[in-house]
Amino acid sequence: MELQQLQDLMERTYGRRDRERGMTAGVAWLTEEVGELAQSLRKGNRETQAHEFADVLAWTASLANQAGVDLTEAMHRYREGCPACGAIPCHCE
Amino acid sequence: MELQQLQDLMERTYGRRDRERGMTAGVAWLTEEVGELAQSLRKGNRETQAHEFADVLAWTASLANQAGVDLTEAMHRYREGCPACGAIPCHCE
Repeated sequence: MELQQLQDLMERTYGRRDRERGMTAGVAWLTEEVGELAQSLRKGNRETQAHEFADVLAWTASLANQAGVDLTEAMHRYREGCPACGAIPCHCE
Repeated sequence: MELQQLQDLMERTYGRRDRERGMTAGVAWLTEEVGELAQSLRKGNRETQAHEFADVLAWTASLANQAGVDLTEAMHRYREGCPACGAIPCHCE
């Protein structure tokens, strides 16, 4: 799945409702899902972890849609290597 | 960028070091980046927001690599519509 497809899918599925709720609500939901992911990484299994990773990606994409940010363009920050040291693999201390 | 490419890029750039630090450290870093994203959505501009979205995706992908979760497979949860109501657009209350 392309990052653009991820954003399009979230737009079609939740776009209107998420915009009505607003970005502050979206930040709260993303935070909730990150908490659930953290718990699943501590004591869940692969299936529950995959579920929570998907929910984190879903809310990240929904917020990007609301903010007008293209995630593919955003990831250019990492395409040439670590943004801090410029290397692959990263050479930062 | 495909989700698999995102995971591969993070593996090549940070995989060994992130695994040495472990998932608990990764969860802390992801949480930090979600906080920076929240702040940028409140008072940042499009450029700083794109930066923070990329960092959230980067840590999410790094943790998925460590957990052995394929993000493309994980997103199947959303491919047929909202996981709760099964519809596109979502019909949940």
